[in-house]
Amino acid sequence: MPEFLKLQPPEDALQQFLESLPEDSRTEPERIPTEDALNRVLAEAISAPHPLPPFARTTVDGYAVLAADTYGASERLPAYLEIVGEVSMGQTTPLTLQSGQAALVHTGGMIPAGGDAVVMIEDTQKAGASEVEVLTAVAVGQNVLVEGEDVKAGELVLEAGVKLRPQEIGGLMALGITSVEVARRPRVGILSTGDEVVPPDVTPSAGQVRDVNSYTLNALVRNAGGQPILRGIIPDQYDALFEATREAHREDDVVIITAGSSVSTRDLTAQVIDALGDPGVLVHGVSIKPGKPTILAVADGIPMIGLPGNPVSALVVAGYFVVPVIRQLLGLDKPAEAARVSARMSVNVAAETGREDYLPVRLSATPQGLLAEPIYGRSNLIFTLVRADGLVRIPAEATGLDAGAEVEVRLF
Amino acid sequence: MPEFLKLQPPEDALQQFLESLPEDSRTEPERIPTEDALNRVLAEAISAPHPLPPFARTTVDGYAVLAADTYGASERLPAYLEIVGEVSMGQTTPLTLQSGQAALVHTGGMIPAGGDAVVMIEDTQKAGASEVEVLTAVAVGQNVLVEGEDVKAGELVLEAGVKLRPQEIGGLMALGITSVEVARRPRVGILSTGDEVVPPDVTPSAGQVRDVNSYTLNALVRNAGGQPILRGIIPDQYDALFEATREAHREDDVVIITAGSSVSTRDLTAQVIDALGDPGVLVHGVSIKPGKPTILAVADGIPMIGLPGNPVSALVVAGYFVVPVIRQLLGLDKPAEAARVSARMSVNVAAETGREDYLPVRLSATPQGLLAEPIYGRSNLIFTLVRADGLVRIPAEATGLDAGAEVEVRLF
Repeated sequence: MPEFLKLQPPEDALQQFLESLPEDSRTEPERIPTEDALNRVLAEAISAPHPLPPFARTTVDGYAVLAADTYGASERLPAYLEIVGEVSMGQTTPLTLQSGQAALVHTGGMIPAGGDAVVMIEDTQKAGASEVEVLTAVAVGQNVLVEGEDVKAGELVLEAGVKLRPQEIGGLMALGITSVEVARRPRVGILSTGDEVVPPDVTPSAGQVRDVNSYTLNALVRNAGGQPILRGIIPDQYDALFEATREAHREDDVVIITAGSSVSTRDLTAQVIDALGDPGVLVHGVSIKPGKPTILAVADGIPMIGLPGNPVSALVVAGYFVVPVIRQLLGLDKPAEAARVSARMSVNVAAETGREDYLPVRLSATPQGLLAEPIYGRSNLIFTLVRADGLVRIPAEATGLDAGAEVEVRLF
Repeated sequence: MPEFLKLQPPEDALQQFLESLPEDSRTEPERIPTEDALNRVLAEAISAPHPLPPFARTTVDGYAVLAADTYGASERLPAYLEIVGEVSMGQTTPLTLQSGQAALVHTGGMIPAGGDAVVMIEDTQKAGASEVEVLTAVAVGQNVLVEGEDVKAGELVLEAGVKLRPQEIGGLMALGITSVEVARRPRVGILSTGDEVVPPDVTPSAGQVRDVNSYTLNALVRNAGGQPILRGIIPDQYDALFEATREAHREDDVVIITAGSSVSTRDLTAQVIDALGDPGVLVHGVSIKPGKPTILAVADGIPMIGLPGNPVSALVVAGYFVVPVIRQLLGLDKPAEAARVSARMSVNVAAETGREDYLPVRLSATPQGLLAEPIYGRSNLIFTLVRADGLVRIPAEATGLDAGAEVEVRLF
């Protein structure tokens, strides 16, 4: 007789799971070149070693001036200034401007000492070899980036826990920080169980099925910032599963076991996990569809997750429980923001109350906005998810969704 | 005197640019292991070599039966069936069911010949060693995945141009397809120009500035699926720029030049591009802020893009023009779907009509939903983008946005 699963709401289950991890569960930092740090998670806080820009610069081509010299200037009544030189790009200028003087400057170039504004070249007119007519007034600071306008010296510019995007890489380079400490990618051991499961390059005999979960989870873990370790297909026997799981538990930061789908092998997974350390299994059964027979556990500090054997369930549940664990181990400071779009349901959809449903949908554009069309298919059918663009969540308290209902689609 | 820039609306400019590429601009395919093909773009259509599942399977633990034998069965009036055996997981069963017979099956296991439904174990009761009481009726097909229910033999399952997600990797593995043809990553040559620009590991002297654009563009290209080739910092001289650009043009699939920001070096970029092949410069100046002095060109079949030298402009404009080119070269079948969220503006924002504005904003959660707060800062200030979560587009016809206005934020 099957074990009675005490089902737990998924949000509670996730919270209990994450709170049961050791207090600082983050992986240790490693130092890598900033150039290679895209999409990695910063493990140190970064302060600016110097101001940015480090000197006052012009944002336009024109003449550096003392703003006061231009007050009242107009096309009909230009101000006449003496051109005392030109600031070459990429060079410190020895020039100092006095009242009545101007220096030719090029965008990005340094403002000579004494100058406090720049007149755009379009608002000037050469008047002889060493004189310029200024046809408009400029205010102090106009067309000038002052020293430290972007970042002050010593300012905290990045905190630990930030995922590095192109602009963070650029900001670090601007400050001359060419290597950074990032969180090591968590090693995620992936075990497939099932006497019927064979590797994908084997032609299955009539009762067998190819291993899909190792590869979908491999991909999911990689996208989430983890380092997947494929630990192969393990027979449905206690000793074999215990040995393989113990090795993963010893070497990896997270262990995932895609359980054989039968009740007996699910029990086996729970027994093996409980034998590896305390507190052991925390949650056995979640009120989520697909994914009911999920196991969440922590054994001796290592998070362990038993996933259903069905490929659709395994992938949907891994998105719900595996991705947040990887993020916590990386020390990411923000909850995952899945890309979401709004859409309307194309048809009525029924759902059981007391259970959160995740419904795969395909999106199509219509003049009235996006339409979400359910992709029906049992959780054994991996191509159900291939045909889908995302998932619609049906809350536990709802009995379904009406055609035309506004829904939020979490894109894969 | 500065050249007059004939500004083109960004959408028109992009369309003209993409339409000027050779008819089939896709990179050639390369065959790689499916396991490594995550996030790559499929370059061949895939049909199923066999049905999935390849045989009828049970989705529950229970008894395979002939549905007709259970009609009318209930707890008060069970149907009695003879147990003729058990189907072991992972094995072909030699059993054939006749009327009045049942076989014990485990989730995922094969349905014996003759069986057309499965009664869940919970709805049965053992009655002696070789007899089972069936307490409920089942319909034909109930709790059974029929052969080909997911995919029929020969069915087109994936088309060329699809980006491979975890589920596509899984679907390919389920079909035993362990290597696939994907589009080679387009090589994107990145040249930085400017006499004032020095590498990030150099301490700039007073008039110099560190190279930021090479590294932000390197990261952006990598995220978009391209292979960035950093071609260094090139002096602001025609011969040097021509030589470096010609080498990139010969070896790479796309060439990006972040122009020195002065008008003279922008002209230099356009001259060099025009010298490398027809049709040459198509667009010189786009009505977008930041990013006005953008150059779009095709020289002898190679797309070439001149970006403004300011880091913020370069990154925003590259998102607008470089990413779509990479996608076209990859043969991606769908337009880029940037992740978007809805938010309300925190303050009034002014904008010029006749120009599309992209305003960096930071998001914060409030009880009334997300609030978008503009990050002001000139396009020279890379940390403006570090502080931002995304961009709000202000359409060309708008004079601004009111505080409280609903806006769509394109997340970075």
